[in-house]
Amino acid sequence: MPTTSTSTRVLPTPSPDRPLRIAMVAPPYFSIPPKGYGGIEAVVADLVDELVADGHHVTLIGAGPHGTKATEYVSTFDEPPSRKLGEPLPEVVHAARVAQIVERGNFDIVHDHTLAGPLLARATVAPTVVTMHGPLEPDPLEYYRALGGTVHLIGISDAQRRPAPDLPWLGTVHNGIRVETFPFQPKKENFALFMGRFHPQKAPHLAIDAARAAGMPITLAGKCQEPVEKAYFEAEIAPRIGPDVSLFGVADAVAKRQLYRRAACLLFPICWEEPFGLVMVEAMACGTPVVALRRGSVPEVVRDGVTGVVVDSPDELPAAIEAARVLSPQACRDHVATSFSTERMAHGYVAAYRKLLAPMQEPAVPAVRSVA
Amino acid sequence: MPTTSTSTRVLPTPSPDRPLRIAMVAPPYFSIPPKGYGGIEAVVADLVDELVADGHHVTLIGAGPHGTKATEYVSTFDEPPSRKLGEPLPEVVHAARVAQIVERGNFDIVHDHTLAGPLLARATVAPTVVTMHGPLEPDPLEYYRALGGTVHLIGISDAQRRPAPDLPWLGTVHNGIRVETFPFQPKKENFALFMGRFHPQKAPHLAIDAARAAGMPITLAGKCQEPVEKAYFEAEIAPRIGPDVSLFGVADAVAKRQLYRRAACLLFPICWEEPFGLVMVEAMACGTPVVALRRGSVPEVVRDGVTGVVVDSPDELPAAIEAARVLSPQACRDHVATSFSTERMAHGYVAAYRKLLAPMQEPAVPAVRSVA
Repeated sequence: MPTTSTSTRVLPTPSPDRPLRIAMVAPPYFSIPPKGYGGIEAVVADLVDELVADGHHVTLIGAGPHGTKATEYVSTFDEPPSRKLGEPLPEVVHAARVAQIVERGNFDIVHDHTLAGPLLARATVAPTVVTMHGPLEPDPLEYYRALGGTVHLIGISDAQRRPAPDLPWLGTVHNGIRVETFPFQPKKENFALFMGRFHPQKAPHLAIDAARAAGMPITLAGKCQEPVEKAYFEAEIAPRIGPDVSLFGVADAVAKRQLYRRAACLLFPICWEEPFGLVMVEAMACGTPVVALRRGSVPEVVRDGVTGVVVDSPDELPAAIEAARVLSPQACRDHVATSFSTERMAHGYVAAYRKLLAPMQEPAVPAVRSVA
Repeated sequence: MPTTSTSTRVLPTPSPDRPLRIAMVAPPYFSIPPKGYGGIEAVVADLVDELVADGHHVTLIGAGPHGTKATEYVSTFDEPPSRKLGEPLPEVVHAARVAQIVERGNFDIVHDHTLAGPLLARATVAPTVVTMHGPLEPDPLEYYRALGGTVHLIGISDAQRRPAPDLPWLGTVHNGIRVETFPFQPKKENFALFMGRFHPQKAPHLAIDAARAAGMPITLAGKCQEPVEKAYFEAEIAPRIGPDVSLFGVADAVAKRQLYRRAACLLFPICWEEPFGLVMVEAMACGTPVVALRRGSVPEVVRDGVTGVVVDSPDELPAAIEAARVLSPQACRDHVATSFSTERMAHGYVAAYRKLLAPMQEPAVPAVRSVA
C-alpha cells in the first residue's frame, strides 16, 4: 500500500469486505466535478466515482448540480455560492445543512473536505475523516489542533504532515488522476516544460535558467493574473525571455496534455513545501520524467533516477535535465498507474476507513470472528 | 416583563432561584468590553457584569485581555484577530477551542454570540442559547433555519423576529444600557439631533428636511467613512447644508452624551427594519424624546406620546418635532431605567435561561406544578 501511511500499512487483518455507507461532504462553492476552478471538487468527484465503482454506498453532499456516479446526491444550495468563496456565512450554512443530512442518514463514515464541517464531528455518531487539502500553515494548524481527537486526519503527502506529527493522523492518501485520460507518448521532443502559476514559490525563473544552461528550449504554461504573479513576471521572467523561451499562457485540459506528452521533461523547481504536486503526476502519466528540487511532496511522488531526477540545489538542475533524457517513459507511466491512479486513491481511503472502523466493529468478540 | 416575549412572560412559576453556571461565548475579534468598535462585545460585557452581580457563575470565553467581572475568563487567542474580521478561519478556530472549553466545564447554559459557535450545539450537553444580534437577512435566516431545534434563539426585538416566526425562538430580550452613565438634563436647547451613520437606511437627509420644516436647527453626528456613506453624503446631505445644519463628525462616548443631554429631540427617521436602535435608548436616558418613523424596533422602544412621537411618513415628522417639545424628560429617563437598563437585560436573559431549564430540572412531576 505505497500511497497510505506506515500505520495504514500495518493494518493487521482487513475488516470484512462489506460495502461501506459513506457520507462524502464536499465544499459548496463549485459543482462536482467543477467546470473550471475547483481542485478539491475534482478530487472529490474522482473519489466518489471510484468508491461507487468499488461497490460502496456514497451519499455526496455538495451544492448545485453534480456529475458524479454518487449513489445519492444531496445539495445544500440550489446554486453554488461561488461568489462568496472566502466568506464565513456559506461555510456555516453548508455545515448546518450537512449536520441535518448526516443525522438523517445511517453512515459508517463521514468524510469531510470542508472548513467548518469538522466542527460537527463531536455530535456525529459515525467517525469523521477529514482530508487536509492545503498546506499546514499556522492558522489551519491551530484549527486542527483544537479539533483534536474528534476527527481523523488524512494528509495528501507525508511531507504535508511533517510540521505537525502531534495531529490525529489516520494516514496519508496521495491524490490520484484518471490515468487513461492522459496520452502516453514515448518519443519526446527537445524542450523542457514548466507548468504552473507564475509565482516565486513555483519559481519558473529557475526553470528557465536551468533549461538554458542545459541547452534545451523551454515552454512555460500557467496562470499570470493576480498582482503577485504579474509583479513576479515583470521582475524575474520578462528579463529572461529569449528565443529559447516560449510562453504558452494558461493551458486547458486538452492543451496541457499535448504539452506534457511532447516535452522531454517537466521542470518542477519549487521553492516551498508544496503538499502535493499534481502536475508531476500528470506529466509522468504521459511518459514525461520530472526534474525537480527536493521540497514538499517531490521525493514521495518522483522515483528518483527512475521517473525523474530530484536534486537539492538549482545549480544541479542542468545536469539533472541531461540525466532525465535517458529515463524510460514507460517507467514513468507505470509508476503513475501503480501509485497515483484514482483507483489507488480510493483504495487508500477505503483502507483508512476500515482501519478506523475495525476496532469499532470487533470490540468484544474477536474469537468468534477468527475465521472471518 | 416588557422586555421579553409573550412566551417568556407566561413562564408559570420561576425555577428555584439557585445561581446558574453560564458559559458566555463572545466573538473573538475585540476585547470585552471593546476599546472602540464592537457592539456585540459591549452588550456581552454588560450582560456578564450584571449576571455576576446577580450571583451567577459566568465563564466568559473571548479573545485577548478582558475587563469584565466574569467569574472565570478563558481566552481563545492571545491577541484578538481583529484584522481577520470577516474571514472564515478565525470563526472556526474560535469555535473549535470553545468546544474544548465547554466540554471541560459543567454548565447549565451555553450562551453563544458568535457565528460558527451554534454548530457545536448538537454536541453540547447544556442547552445553547443564541442571541441574534443582526438583522434576519436571507443568509443568516437560512443558517438559523438549518440549525433548527439544536439552538434556542433570543431576538433583540420582536420586530427582528417578525420575518421568521418559524425559528425556534426562546424569547425577546432588548439590549440595555448602563443608565447611570448617561447624564439626565430636563432643560433642553433648541436643536434636533441626528446620531448615526450617514447611510440611506439611517436617512439623515429626512432629519434635515424635517427639522428645517419645523424651524429647528439640527446637529448631525456620525460616521461617514465607507464608500456608500461618502456617496450618500455627497448626493443627499451636501446639497442640504445651510446655516441651520451643524456637522459634528464622529461623537465619542463623552461627546455623544453631551449632545444627547442638550438636544430638544433625537430624530430617528430610519428607512429599514433596524432590529434595535440603541441611540433611541441613549437619548431617552438623557431625558431627550425621540421623533421617529415607525420601522423596525421603534414602536417597541419608544412609548409613543410619552417618550417620543412615532409617525408613519416623513411628511408627519415636522409636526412630530413640535409635539415632542412638550413631552416629559423625566418620563423618558424613567422609561429607560425601567425597561432598557443592563439589569433589565440580564433579568430577561435569566428568565429565558430558567424557562429553558425548568422542564429539564422537573421532568416527571407535572402534577406538582398544576397550580402554577
